[in-house]
Amino acid sequence: MGLATVRTSEGTAAALIDDGSAQLLAYADAGAALQAAPMTALAQARTGIEVDIEQAEFAPVIPQPAKIFCVGLNYRDHVEEMGREIPDAPTCFAKFARALIGANDAIEMPAAEVSDSVDWEVELTVVIGTTVRNATASEALAAIAGFTVLNDVSMRDWQTRSVQFLAGKTWENCTPLGPWIVGTDVLGDGSGLEVSCSVNGVNKQLSNTDHLIFNAVDLVQDLSKVITLEPGDLIATGTPGGVGAGRNPKEFLQDRDVLTTSIEGIGTLTNLCRRD
Amino acid sequence: MGLATVRTSEGTAAALIDDGSAQLLAYADAGAALQAAPMTALAQARTGIEVDIEQAEFAPVIPQPAKIFCVGLNYRDHVEEMGREIPDAPTCFAKFARALIGANDAIEMPAAEVSDSVDWEVELTVVIGTTVRNATASEALAAIAGFTVLNDVSMRDWQTRSVQFLAGKTWENCTPLGPWIVGTDVLGDGSGLEVSCSVNGVNKQLSNTDHLIFNAVDLVQDLSKVITLEPGDLIATGTPGGVGAGRNPKEFLQDRDVLTTSIEGIGTLTNLCRRD
Repeated sequence: MGLATVRTSEGTAAALIDDGSAQLLAYADAGAALQAAPMTALAQARTGIEVDIEQAEFAPVIPQPAKIFCVGLNYRDHVEEMGREIPDAPTCFAKFARALIGANDAIEMPAAEVSDSVDWEVELTVVIGTTVRNATASEALAAIAGFTVLNDVSMRDWQTRSVQFLAGKTWENCTPLGPWIVGTDVLGDGSGLEVSCSVNGVNKQLSNTDHLIFNAVDLVQDLSKVITLEPGDLIATGTPGGVGAGRNPKEFLQDRDVLTTSIEGIGTLTNLCRRD
Repeated sequence: MGLATVRTSEGTAAALIDDGSAQLLAYADAGAALQAAPMTALAQARTGIEVDIEQAEFAPVIPQPAKIFCVGLNYRDHVEEMGREIPDAPTCFAKFARALIGANDAIEMPAAEVSDSVDWEVELTVVIGTTVRNATASEALAAIAGFTVLNDVSMRDWQTRSVQFLAGKTWENCTPLGPWIVGTDVLGDGSGLEVSCSVNGVNKQLSNTDHLIFNAVDLVQDLSKVITLEPGDLIATGTPGGVGAGRNPKEFLQDRDVLTTSIEGIGTLTNLCRRD
């Protein structure tokens, strides 16, 4: 069972996904649902309204997270392909909410003269469920509601124009997030999950979250030293090898490409790339 | 005249600051005020409630900005003291709202064993007033509501533990912001303003916004290519030379230090450093 945010005629609603149906909940979105109740108690907020999952239109699963942390350089093969050193501590940067799109929305790529190096990055993403600061390992695991899928679509030219990545990472309407959150009751600490990414049906990335240098619990412990984590906060845990910038020759996303991003036990994002 | 956010018995309220008084407005905070009306029209929303400015308690002037952009390496003398290169493009990173404190609040420094290198950075900060994307220079200036003061208090050990600054820049309750916003009708494009910072009354930084490498208009133009800027969004424009990490020997903030941060034509932040 997963927790989604679906678009409705009135805006959005949180929904429980089960056996091909989306059962709407009495919350405006999955972020509001997690502020109100733990994942395992949400079935009690069912409205009785059910939508066929094939008809459902998915919003970014957390449309307005207070914080989106992203972790770079967190799989050894990706560190090597980017010519970087294995880090001693997590490499953390941010995104803002306006970067996010739904699981099947178009990626609104900048014009080629603005960025000609739009790249893919499949990432297991932690969704925080309870407020936590200075977490121990067991508190960190308990603070995680579940996991979702994010593609940290990156404008490499903007990412590397200075020593800070943000400008290449928070492009408006370019980061798919969803389709839903699967809880720690199903996925445990998020280890042992296959992650993959393909472009036009050709696989580009294939790895497993067992290869994360800093895993979900490590990251919640670490970041909760800096700042209080709250329900709906996101931590995108980093991407494995196989990005376009690490290939020879380099490959980047083009107008009309279809980007497919999957994580075992969660689901798949399918996004058309659009360049106007 | 400035636009502030003051604490009240019911929470917070936006307030116009004029001649030693704070006149409360019918908005919950300065961010809500800017979403509703331009700076120059806010006097119409006066409630008639007036507070002596000496009695007023200032919240972070924008308590919940959707985005806080910060710019590093944006004064030549600071680039040199940090041993970096003069950048070709703005060096942008983020903060999250929970980092912010009011103009006279205590800075809640981490324990010395967590960070022993807490440093100061006075910064002229742009407050966005209207929604803007892909701004021309004139559109960028028109989108700025005004300017306020921020001290980008930085945990240098956390900032430099990886290649990304975020973890050292978004520490909870460590970034004073305020005391109020002064509009572009008074300050123009924010050039020609003296910026200064002192610790226990001893001056540490003294410069002028004329020395910014990328000025306020440049930054709004640049960042609005990446993402839509909205009322209440902040851009901290960077700090001049004189930070503690650039001194020989290095100097850092200690428990009970008083940090004073001033910008000509706007006002002063006075914050006690507390280490529990």
